[in-house]
Amino acid sequence: MPGSSFGNLFRIHTFGESHGAGLGAIVDGCPAGLFLEEKDIQTYLDRRKPGQSNISTPRKEADKVEILSGVFEGQTTGTPIAMLVRNTSQKSKDYSALANCYRPGHADFTFDEKFGHRDYRGGGRSSGRETIGRVAAGAIAAKLLSELNIRVMAYTKSIGPVSVDMTKFNEEAILNTPTAMPDEEASAEAEVYLKKCMEEKDSAGGVIECKVFGLPAGIGEPVFDKLDANLAKALMSIGAVKAVEIGDGVNVAMMHGSENNDPFMTNEEDFPEIADRIPIIKKTNHSGGTLGGISDGSELIIRAYVKPTPSIFRPQQTVDTDGENVEITIKGRHDPVIVPRAVVVVESMVALTVADLLLTNMTSQMEHVRKIYNP
Amino acid sequence: MPGSSFGNLFRIHTFGESHGAGLGAIVDGCPAGLFLEEKDIQTYLDRRKPGQSNISTPRKEADKVEILSGVFEGQTTGTPIAMLVRNTSQKSKDYSALANCYRPGHADFTFDEKFGHRDYRGGGRSSGRETIGRVAAGAIAAKLLSELNIRVMAYTKSIGPVSVDMTKFNEEAILNTPTAMPDEEASAEAEVYLKKCMEEKDSAGGVIECKVFGLPAGIGEPVFDKLDANLAKALMSIGAVKAVEIGDGVNVAMMHGSENNDPFMTNEEDFPEIADRIPIIKKTNHSGGTLGGISDGSELIIRAYVKPTPSIFRPQQTVDTDGENVEITIKGRHDPVIVPRAVVVVESMVALTVADLLLTNMTSQMEHVRKIYNP
Amino acid sequence: MPGSSFGNLFRIHTFGESHGAGLGAIVDGCPAGLFLEEKDIQTYLDRRKPGQSNISTPRKEADKVEILSGVFEGQTTGTPIAMLVRNTSQKSKDYSALANCYRPGHADFTFDEKFGHRDYRGGGRSSGRETIGRVAAGAIAAKLLSELNIRVMAYTKSIGPVSVDMTKFNEEAILNTPTAMPDEEASAEAEVYLKKCMEEKDSAGGVIECKVFGLPAGIGEPVFDKLDANLAKALMSIGAVKAVEIGDGVNVAMMHGSENNDPFMTNEEDFPEIADRIPIIKKTNHSGGTLGGISDGSELIIRAYVKPTPSIFRPQQTVDTDGENVEITIKGRHDPVIVPRAVVVVESMVALTVADLLLTNMTSQMEHVRKIYNP
Amino acid sequence: MPGSSFGNLFRIHTFGESHGAGLGAIVDGCPAGLFLEEKDIQTYLDRRKPGQSNISTPRKEADKVEILSGVFEGQTTGTPIAMLVRNTSQKSKDYSALANCYRPGHADFTFDEKFGHRDYRGGGRSSGRETIGRVAAGAIAAKLLSELNIRVMAYTKSIGPVSVDMTKFNEEAILNTPTAMPDEEASAEAEVYLKKCMEEKDSAGGVIECKVFGLPAGIGEPVFDKLDANLAKALMSIGAVKAVEIGDGVNVAMMHGSENNDPFMTNEEDFPEIADRIPIIKKTNHSGGTLGGISDGSELIIRAYVKPTPSIFRPQQTVDTDGENVEITIKGRHDPVIVPRAVVVVESMVALTVADLLLTNMTSQMEHVRKIYNP
Repeated sequence: MPGSSFGNLFRIHTFGESHGAGLGAIVDGCPAGLFLEEKDIQTYLDRRKPGQSNISTPRKEADKVEILSGVFEGQTTGTPIAMLVRNTSQKSKDYSALANCYRPGHADFTFDEKFGHRDYRGGGRSSGRETIGRVAAGAIAAKLLSELNIRVMAYTKSIGPVSVDMTKFNEEAILNTPTAMPDEEASAEAEVYLKKCMEEKDSAGGVIECKVFGLPAGIGEPVFDKLDANLAKALMSIGAVKAVEIGDGVNVAMMHGSENNDPFMTNEEDFPEIADRIPIIKKTNHSGGTLGGISDGSELIIRAYVKPTPSIFRPQQTVDTDGENVEITIKGRHDPVIVPRAVVVVESMVALTVADLLLTNMTSQMEHVRKIYNP
Repeated sequence: MPGSSFGNLFRIHTFGESHGAGLGAIVDGCPAGLFLEEKDIQTYLDRRKPGQSNISTPRKEADKVEILSGVFEGQTTGTPIAMLVRNTSQKSKDYSALANCYRPGHADFTFDEKFGHRDYRGGGRSSGRETIGRVAAGAIAAKLLSELNIRVMAYTKSIGPVSVDMTKFNEEAILNTPTAMPDEEASAEAEVYLKKCMEEKDSAGGVIECKVFGLPAGIGEPVFDKLDANLAKALMSIGAVKAVEIGDGVNVAMMHGSENNDPFMTNEEDFPEIADRIPIIKKTNHSGGTLGGISDGSELIIRAYVKPTPSIFRPQQTVDTDGENVEITIKGRHDPVIVPRAVVVVESMVALTVADLLLTNMTSQMEHVRKIYNP
Repeated sequence: MPGSSFGNLFRIHTFGESHGAGLGAIVDGCPAGLFLEEKDIQTYLDRRKPGQSNISTPRKEADKVEILSGVFEGQTTGTPIAMLVRNTSQKSKDYSALANCYRPGHADFTFDEKFGHRDYRGGGRSSGRETIGRVAAGAIAAKLLSELNIRVMAYTKSIGPVSVDMTKFNEEAILNTPTAMPDEEASAEAEVYLKKCMEEKDSAGGVIECKVFGLPAGIGEPVFDKLDANLAKALMSIGAVKAVEIGDGVNVAMMHGSENNDPFMTNEEDFPEIADRIPIIKKTNHSGGTLGGISDGSELIIRAYVKPTPSIFRPQQTVDTDGENVEITIKGRHDPVIVPRAVVVVESMVALTVADLLLTNMTSQMEHVRKIYNP
Repeated sequence: MPGSSFGNLFRIHTFGESHGAGLGAIVDGCPAGLFLEEKDIQTYLDRRKPGQSNISTPRKEADKVEILSGVFEGQTTGTPIAMLVRNTSQKSKDYSALANCYRPGHADFTFDEKFGHRDYRGGGRSSGRETIGRVAAGAIAAKLLSELNIRVMAYTKSIGPVSVDMTKFNEEAILNTPTAMPDEEASAEAEVYLKKCMEEKDSAGGVIECKVFGLPAGIGEPVFDKLDANLAKALMSIGAVKAVEIGDGVNVAMMHGSENNDPFMTNEEDFPEIADRIPIIKKTNHSGGTLGGISDGSELIIRAYVKPTPSIFRPQQTVDTDGENVEITIKGRHDPVIVPRAVVVVESMVALTVADLLLTNMTSQMEHVRKIYNP
């Protein structure tokens, strides 16, 4: 089935394998008149590039994006924006040894079961490189949101047992630390932990948190296309994510209603300067910014739990394609933790989800329809 | 936007408000030739009915389903199956007092922001009664799956601090305890806890776990329509769910790759009786039954974290529709915990997701296409 | 597959069989705040009712619509609008004789081939009664359009050899003649022709024309979701339609570019009163109101060619479900021509298509997005 | 809105402008295991290339396709197949003169109305070059169909007043004549006619007919996704098509039911060699191969009416982007008739529609589901 599309109105289609000719995405449905250049996209792609630190694979990938269509004289035209990133640094021979066996924690076995054969080079379509299309498209969604003063910010919340101290939150550190943590001390500690993992030929997991600022109330659709439902799908569709939570998340199961409910209040006293535009606010934000699946005007807060890199360099038991038990040792170049490079992927998926539902909401009221057609 | 549809090939559309004429669903895309009668659906609906225990609202709702179309001589015809449940026991006057204020933890405020006005009676479309459409449709999906020997089973895993002891797992207890826990002792303990909540005019949250048995490997689509991604959306779209996890879930963030990876092995020794049909199995199931978003032949395991009922009987601070701070006290009839009645909703959403991706997977290989068209 | 949905943003789902419990539709995506009552829908349904003249089947069908959801205090709420029409006058025994044979020109054979069995009573889902869902939904689309001063008008253009004289166009006659022709003389002539058809136990075809007035330029999407492409699908999906044309239609094949091109001109001289709002117009309208699949500000003109009623009362050769050659004579109550009652179906499908693309177009430009979110 | 996607299960996304970096398509949903190489696609693209005769534009376009993903070791993998054709021969300066005015019969005006600005070079997204994506994708659909012994064949039926004599039908002539007519005499006559048009700085229209052989009965969905409805959309979405008909098409409006109905008969006498596989056939084929929107086992017959090329070299009246009346004379390189190069576009769109509904139909019956999952 066509499973490489995401979104309804701001809709993307991605393509590409780890070791094929290239990867990319089409964004179909971006409104015309958005200022856009390749640099906007490249900045995002550079954040997921490997080889940028000693806790990342030493693979070098240029990952230069080319816009093939949909932009004219620096602005989107309303037609599909196709983007292509050529594969350049792929070493297929590293993988030929694995053509005939199923790596634990990877999709080799399930692809064979589903499709009858698979592009085994570097994981093919199930490679982490698949996220290039998401990030290229996400950069455009983020640009659109920024025009409306909506900002999406993701960062590493924890790696293994090392968590960020939110009282020391420093946004610049997200881009400057190798861990994408907004806390340089925690980041240094996490690096020590990761080096130990690498010495032990093992890997680590972690948590990514994402916030959205400036989102107006009313975004998201009742029932199935709730803002949180679509965000959950968006994040759980990222290869290594095994859990997703909104606001207080898993902790709500242990809370009382009297703790979890966020009281409403008028905005006059606390934020008089925006009371005119946003007259009603919530006193707390246990909900994480959504009520009934619709944004409630508070910050959106969402977290993704990421499993440890499945490619580890210890011998592992598995089965070959003939069904025989074998022991394998994975070679190649792999990050000891997926989290830091996945931060921009999370940010992209959140931007895509929010942009899509924001456009969707434009048709929610007759008053909006009249604003466009009977000025 | 049309937000009341779910699924691609086994596709449902739900409708209805808490206090309108009725609620229901259309199932469009159910294969012809499935034996189906109203009883199959009523059995599911009866599991979500209120008024069945002293920890549930004393509201009585008949919730009788009528099949309007799509079934002829006891079999589905391949055309849309429309189902209707009339509202009968609704007391709108209970709610008129709340027409002009925003209940904390509810969608009153966000609906007004989005749509400009709302059906305030009983929460309208954001009422828990909205799940009637999901359950009616889910019953049909479950019936389809059962024909293929695939079984979906959900139950309460915990309520507040009280968790099920899985070593005492007793499937019959799911239907027989008021908590839907598969452990009578834990259930009794949870009842005590809930009564205390009610005395304190408060409410509780909890966790629902769902398993799928007999699912063949290969179900789910790479990239965005991953089995786990669609399940995450399915469960997060249920009103009170704030977190979703697959397999080891949130715990993967603290695990090493060497712990989290599930080794593959041939099936000959452990389960020789099914080795012919399922030659390869996983030694462990940290993944929860999916690799790369595609079912891996193991049990599917998924959990939903449910927030405490927002309707509590204590005075709460909030804002009225004029933007004035007010204090409200909610009346009406409300469960102290959402979890027990949501178990069948989770089961329904999982059945719908799995049935949809199962049909979807039929076109994954030319070999399947040839099986249908060149017998 | 789910084949009973139409539209993307103004999206409908229909259901129901000729002799089942009832038929209807869900409209999902109608903006909140549209004034709507059952009467708006009933008026449309009454136009497709049978038994209203001597050239129509004497069957009496009440076809009373009930709104089940989505409307509160006289306005749409933005949630799904479900509508139900109960079947009341069905005589299933008329059809049991035909359960085992395939009527020529009907879908009996193809339904059996596709689904393995079928609801043979009155054609089941392939009955003309299926259009009840379209008309109920179309009435809402038309109401929405009328709020924006967009008007859809369909009428019978010809029946068999009898054509309307457009110089005698009289809009009132559409609702007042049994043929739905806007020309009473032609209508009388067509009645004579149809009576002769009935005497000869035969049936007739015809042409329906539909115009849309007041549609702004810019509606429709480039490439696949062109306004004309979606209209063609909309009309060709009506049971008996075998050809669809826009503007000069089939005649363009014989024209030169110099004849077919419509020159643009400024509007100042011809229509100075609207020159401010519509500064550019076309001198002619061979295009039928669309260029490149997008409305061009002229009247939209589209025609559907309708085949003769397949149910005729002469003996016909066919095959039974055992594959034996047999001769059948159809009984029951059937119109000698489908056209007059299909006029409102065409009008409904055009209204649905236009309303959908009108909402869709709201996200075409950043300027529109800013109008909604940065007032 | 995302308007550049077509199909549900065999789904394509196209992109690209006349004078941008390139054009192409993604095919998402092609079953794995289809043998495919670039040559299969190039053969189709070569049929739409210009510069191949004296009645075609002298522009030379290489239009070489590159497969970027989704094919491994000569077979499709089940993941998206992305294809790219670079633009190489574009002369943008030819068009800069037209940046500020609206060509009659073109989409310049409507794109500006819709999007606020447009890529005016060569028509941008509304250029005939847009069909490259359709043809590249259509070639894959045709390959899939050929594996199932289903064959799609389109040809020119008429150009202006010159029609093919079907008694002289010669399939080879379709590829060998410059007109794509299956009749060399008619083709020669049409060439004479077209040269006269060119001398008069004018253009011509025509008719394309397409047949599908070997399609099993049962393909197409009741109600909105009828085979004929989706075909009508497919063909009407091609830039210059203004009418579409199935089977007897526009002529049905003048026929009686007794003429238009196709009697069924057992297949034993006429085609005993296939009676086992196809026991029931139709004696005639007025329906054009579909009943109730579902294929009936007969040849599928569909026709598209194509308007004359709007780019003519005579002076034409129009309006500039400032709203002033102006006279323009189009330069550049344009075909005097669109029909011959559009034949392969029609064939592609029909192949795409049929392949999509063929996959869709796989889930129509429980018996099919069991064939895949319970072998």
